[in-house]
Amino acid sequence: MIKFDILIKNAVILTMDSKMTLFDNGFIGIQNDIITYLGATKPNCSAEEIIDAENNIIMPGLINSHTHSGMTMFRGVADDLSLMNWLNNYIWPLEDKFVTEKNVRIASKLAIAEMILSGTTTFNDMYFFTGTTAENCKEIGMRAVLGEAVIDFPASVKKTSEKYFIEFIEKYSNDDLIIPSIVPHSPYSCSKELLQRIKLLSDENNLPVHIHISETLDEVNLIKDRTGMTPVEYLDSIDFLNHRTIAVHCVHLTDNDINILKIRNVGIVNSPESNLKLASGIAEVPKMIKSGLTVSLGTDGPASNNNLDMFEEMSITVKIHKALYNDSTVMNAREVLKMGTINGAKVLGINNLTGSLEVGKKADLIMIDVKKPHLTPMYDPYSHLTYCAKGSDVDTVIINGKLILKKRKFLKLDLEKVMLDIKNISNEINAYKN
Amino acid sequence: MIKFDILIKNAVILTMDSKMTLFDNGFIGIQNDIITYLGATKPNCSAEEIIDAENNIIMPGLINSHTHSGMTMFRGVADDLSLMNWLNNYIWPLEDKFVTEKNVRIASKLAIAEMILSGTTTFNDMYFFTGTTAENCKEIGMRAVLGEAVIDFPASVKKTSEKYFIEFIEKYSNDDLIIPSIVPHSPYSCSKELLQRIKLLSDENNLPVHIHISETLDEVNLIKDRTGMTPVEYLDSIDFLNHRTIAVHCVHLTDNDINILKIRNVGIVNSPESNLKLASGIAEVPKMIKSGLTVSLGTDGPASNNNLDMFEEMSITVKIHKALYNDSTVMNAREVLKMGTINGAKVLGINNLTGSLEVGKKADLIMIDVKKPHLTPMYDPYSHLTYCAKGSDVDTVIINGKLILKKRKFLKLDLEKVMLDIKNISNEINAYKN
Repeated sequence: MIKFDILIKNAVILTMDSKMTLFDNGFIGIQNDIITYLGATKPNCSAEEIIDAENNIIMPGLINSHTHSGMTMFRGVADDLSLMNWLNNYIWPLEDKFVTEKNVRIASKLAIAEMILSGTTTFNDMYFFTGTTAENCKEIGMRAVLGEAVIDFPASVKKTSEKYFIEFIEKYSNDDLIIPSIVPHSPYSCSKELLQRIKLLSDENNLPVHIHISETLDEVNLIKDRTGMTPVEYLDSIDFLNHRTIAVHCVHLTDNDINILKIRNVGIVNSPESNLKLASGIAEVPKMIKSGLTVSLGTDGPASNNNLDMFEEMSITVKIHKALYNDSTVMNAREVLKMGTINGAKVLGINNLTGSLEVGKKADLIMIDVKKPHLTPMYDPYSHLTYCAKGSDVDTVIINGKLILKKRKFLKLDLEKVMLDIKNISNEINAYKN
Repeated sequence: MIKFDILIKNAVILTMDSKMTLFDNGFIGIQNDIITYLGATKPNCSAEEIIDAENNIIMPGLINSHTHSGMTMFRGVADDLSLMNWLNNYIWPLEDKFVTEKNVRIASKLAIAEMILSGTTTFNDMYFFTGTTAENCKEIGMRAVLGEAVIDFPASVKKTSEKYFIEFIEKYSNDDLIIPSIVPHSPYSCSKELLQRIKLLSDENNLPVHIHISETLDEVNLIKDRTGMTPVEYLDSIDFLNHRTIAVHCVHLTDNDINILKIRNVGIVNSPESNLKLASGIAEVPKMIKSGLTVSLGTDGPASNNNLDMFEEMSITVKIHKALYNDSTVMNAREVLKMGTINGAKVLGINNLTGSLEVGKKADLIMIDVKKPHLTPMYDPYSHLTYCAKGSDVDTVIINGKLILKKRKFLKLDLEKVMLDIKNISNEINAYKN
């Protein structure tokens, strides 16, 4: 008789495996951090904890493939402005003043709480004082790909030294929740020499490289003026791109750019809500998928979105391209759910660990309560998760085999304190602004 | 000393009046169905019920200016199909079989519950067996503009006789919650003679006329082939358009169409999520607003959205046009909140009753609980309601001075029963489909 730590019963299970296996009324057994049973029948077993998932859909935890978790302190501090006005007069001066180790510790904890409450179980982060974010992940039990943002321009944004990020990588090189990465901000804000040093470090240590590419037309034109090439062509010309590259945004790509990204096996992250809100443009997601690229989704930071809800990103992605392509079949519910789960894991290079529910993978899963008016009736769970569900429908979250959120209550995290701490920071920010 | 039925204290109040008056810590007094006090200081008063709105934003109830409430039974029954496949092979055959008085009574009750739970206090409906929807509104306490859809083609969709809608109009001509309307489906599905009869009836009885106009390019081309004119030009040529016309969708308008709609003082409703999902296109909302048209928002029916959450419509509206116009200032949070409230009331011709919080207007208001991670910190409540909030953040709802929803619980409605009833219908639909 198997002895599980957790047994889940009575669930509609969307495994998101390569065959899109679905169980109408299935069972999941978890031992330590691993899924060791998945099936339509109850195994001969005992369990420390039995979870009755009646009226719930179970799916892999969502993967937020690009965010800036420390920016929750700036959520909604400035909106409806032109990008340059927003950056130069609000975000950069505020970051210069308020992005301290102490504040990032609070802000990223709030971000992690918000992400778990809306179904994210892994996030890929680009920010400063990453050590504090990693400590929050360990404390709360969140999985994350984390690296310290490195940048040459503007120098005022520089918050830590190169030593900081090297030490961070060493410290977390063998962690069960944290996957270290290297995070050059973008081709326009990092020098060629810096990018080449990063590439070498990535090759030597097999580290993912997380970088913004072709987010705005201004950026594309800047690189073209400097190099005569598009950002993708330029990065390829310095041998920067490979399967470890996590290329974020990719709003403005030429056919040749897409071809290069495909040849180099680069993983793509799109952040549609941020791209819309900042008027950056709309990435040609269906075209990228058709060309064979793996495309995932991220929320971007809470100052440009302004929340961290992956359900919104999936919902907007599947809908917006239908209208733009004048074809309601150009994307569908199953495809966009892959973007939010297994594609994210592939792009981050952790699909051996997470992104689908399969025996042998880490137990990273979410339960969505469908006994609600806006989710009733239910003909197709894939459709419901894409077109009807919200982050607030997430009921229970398990990460790395541990029950983190149960009936929307954190088992360990003191949410009241986190919200109070961030309010104190926002009071300081308001005082500084006025 | 004033004696209120309800006194609300400690609230951030967005009145959405013409001056966009905001109270950081205000008071609202309600007597019977009317707001009789609104201010920054506590009046000398007693109250039957005192609501402490600490940690809440109070705003006018949202106005869902276009939906088909009876279609909740078909929520998610068919997605990701071409429009004609969706209509011909799924929606129309299913409507033919399942749109009965008994089923619409259940389906519209579920819709009303979902709308109240996501902050809508008035909706404008186009469907069949409207009498049942009206009875649900009266039972639950919902405000609605209701009329029986009339249509010449396809005849199979016809569910009731003209007598039905005339009797409905007479019955509710003086109701405190129901505003009767006349609802010709569209210029392509109603004959010229029918449209002219409707116009006469509207003129004689001062009734709003709720009609789909220029939703798809196919529709525009059909009318052009028939008449040589765009749908708007055609309707104007038969003297159909005036300030009582509620023109829904308006995705494909020429400059001349916009000019005609402005001259005739027609109210506009856009349903962006449905327009995206059905690949109908994207209406030029900023252009319409700039031209002086009053533009409001509706969810459209739950089979083409697939929920009835007005927060999603506002959020997508403010963002999508920024990217399409390549200008992040082209729309803003305050403007889109007007679209979801006071503009809806203007378009439906009921802005003397609702749509803003002002002394003398009906007490239709919602409280949004902002003590949540994704709404923390808060620098600007308008931004939060537009970019961060979800329908599920609505905590308490008052309609026509009555407390309908308190801490997300209905005071009178048996939600479990409604969900069970709709599941039974969906079981029949599944059996019929398979």
